[in-house]
Parts: sequence; C-alpha cells; structure tokens
Amino acid sequence: MACCVDFHFDFSSPYGFIAAMKIDEVAKAACRRLTWRPFLLGAVYKRFGQSPLEHPLKRRYVLEVDVPRVGRRDGLDIKVPMGFPQHSLPAARLFYWIASQAPDKAPEFAKAAYRRYWLDGCSTADPQTAVEVAAGLGFDRQKVEAGMQESSVKLKLTLENEQAIAKGVFGSPFIFVDGEPFWGSDRLDHVAERLAAKD
Amino acid sequence: MACCVDFHFDFSSPYGFIAAMKIDEVAKAACRRLTWRPFLLGAVYKRFGQSPLEHPLKRRYVLEVDVPRVGRRDGLDIKVPMGFPQHSLPAARLFYWIASQAPDKAPEFAKAAYRRYWLDGCSTADPQTAVEVAAGLGFDRQKVEAGMQESSVKLKLTLENEQAIAKGVFGSPFIFVDGEPFWGSDRLDHVAERLAAKD
Repeated sequence: MACCVDFHFDFSSPYGFIAAMKIDEVAKAACRRLTWRPFLLGAVYKRFGQSPLEHPLKRRYVLEVDVPRVGRRDGLDIKVPMGFPQHSLPAARLFYWIASQAPDKAPEFAKAAYRRYWLDGCSTADPQTAVEVAAGLGFDRQKVEAGMQESSVKLKLTLENEQAIAKGVFGSPFIFVDGEPFWGSDRLDHVAERLAAKD
Repeated sequence: MACCVDFHFDFSSPYGFIAAMKIDEVAKAACRRLTWRPFLLGAVYKRFGQSPLEHPLKRRYVLEVDVPRVGRRDGLDIKVPMGFPQHSLPAARLFYWIASQAPDKAPEFAKAAYRRYWLDGCSTADPQTAVEVAAGLGFDRQKVEAGMQESSVKLKLTLENEQAIAKGVFGSPFIFVDGEPFWGSDRLDHVAERLAAKD
C-alpha cells in the first residue's frame, strides 16, 4: 500500500521554505501522496514556553550564514521577510480556505506565498500579501478576503496546530512518512531514502 | 595558501560523535590541516542561560529517532551514554594533556573516547573511562591521571571554551573553514564543498 507523506510547515520558517521548494520532487520521485499542512509555530512554542530563535548567536548564524548558504546551493536568493519573526496567520488560514475550494491549488498557493515571503521579503503577518498571491492564482479577491475570516477555516488551522503538537512537532519543517518523523529541510534526503526503501 | 579547518565538539554531543567519525576523511580528501578542539557545551550554555535539549519532544526526537537513524546510515550502532546529558570534563582535559605530550595522538584519543561514550554507552563524566582510553593508546596510567589535573591543562580547556564562545559557537559540532562557520554533522557535505571550491 502506498504510504503517505505529511509535510508540516510554518510560512515564517526559512527551512520550511527550502523544503517546500523541493518536497514535491521527493514525493513524486517515489510516487507518494503528499499532504501540505501549514501550522503556526507560535502555537507550538506557546505550549512549551519557547521563543523562536531566541538565542542571539543562533539567530545570527541561521539567518545570516546558514539559510543564505543553503539557499544558494539550491539556487534561491533568500531575503528575510520584513519584521521577521512574525506570525504567518494570513497565509496559513488562506491555504486551508483554498484547500476547501480547490484542493489541487493549495500547494501551488503555498509555494507562491513562500516565494513572496522568502525571496521578495514580504511580511508574513501582512494579510494583503497572502490575498494578492491567491488573486494571482485566479481566486476572486473579495471571496478570498471573506474566506480567510470563515470560522471553519480558523477552526481548521487551530486543529492543525493541535494535531502537529499531538504528533510531536516542535519545529518547522516536520515531515512524516507513515508516521515516522523527520525534522528539518536537511532531512529530505533521509525522507527520500525511506520512501525508496518502502518500494 | 592551504586553509584551516577547526573542529569544535563536545564529547557529550551525539552529532559531534557522528561528525568525528567522518571529519578526518573530509579534511584529508581536500588535503587540509584539521584541528580538533574539544570544548564544554555547558560553558556555552551557562553563558547564554540555556540547558541542553531542555525541550522534551526535541530531546526524545533527537535521542530516540534522529541520532539512531543518522548513525545507522553511517554504520554506527549508537548507544546513549549512561547518565546523559552529563559534562565531559575528563576526556576534554585529557585530550589537551595528550595534545601537549604527543599531538598526533590527540585526535586518535578523541575518536576512541567518543566510541566508548556513544557506542559502548559509558558515562562522559566518569574519569576512569577517559583514563582507560588513554592507557589503551599506550600512555602511562599514572601520568595520565596526574596530567588531567595539571593547571595548564585546565587552563587550556577554559581558554578553548572562551575561544569557542568568542567565535560564535552555540552548539556541537561547529566547524570553521577559514573562519566560516558550519553548525552540525549534517553540514559536513557543505564543508566538503567549500573546501573543494578553495582548491
């Protein structure tokens, strides 16, 4: 039986972005069903009393050294989103509204939004950026703005945050292959190996 | 001019162990001078008010999922040291005593000690394990025991901790190529690429 790949990520996570640009290929190479599952790291951090990149040396290393370097290896010219670190509520909610309207469009939206944040440097907290990305994919702007406010959409995201916590997610990205966890964009090759071994 | 590779690691760090088993090969392939530099993560954590693997989910993921899986990929059957996480003062001090007596033997000691901790599961805080490893390399047990207590050795380790902090080290392993930092055993391929690019 074909196994499932769950891809949990926060739009404000640079390594989530790096993984998002490659994970389609990893899953497709192994002919696996991939589920994109944006969540809010803030909800996870709050549960465990953490803060994002609170260590000053680690923050500098990640944002100024490692992420740009990893990006260059993948041909991505990374630009840290304005106001980073901020929540990514607009894109996360909008993703689930789009998934409810046109499921196939949701991953496309996720990748386009991620590029706006991590290549163009737009604020992840700005609702207009997310709305524009959806509009760019052909969605009606007014419907998009109303959709983001739907209580079913808000509830879906809350549920996703809870499910992520319940599965042991403590960072972004987190990838599960038949329930086995892989943390970080630098574990994508391990994911690919595991998928190949399941053939 | 040939560049230098600095390898900062703590004997109590599992990813330090994984890197230690491979870094000779990385440096040798590029004909670079490699300097092994054990330090105490505790000194770094203390400076920044952190604790090692304090997040319960992260700790479980690292020790029970990722480290064993990464180890298996490298043919290493990892066993977490008894009492983990504990300091690794004995091996760190003994490394610098050996380096003062027979510099070429110090990396050999580091690898042998690491194997005792992360393959045999011996406590990193137990001085006798470190002494036995040194004795196994031909050093006189009494001299070794006295050497670990030399104030110049203690001072050297304190200096290494300070230098690591000054260079921005906040975890283990940390590898520097001509001053450029690479954090984590999963960055060894980036180190290899950087070394190749310098040819």
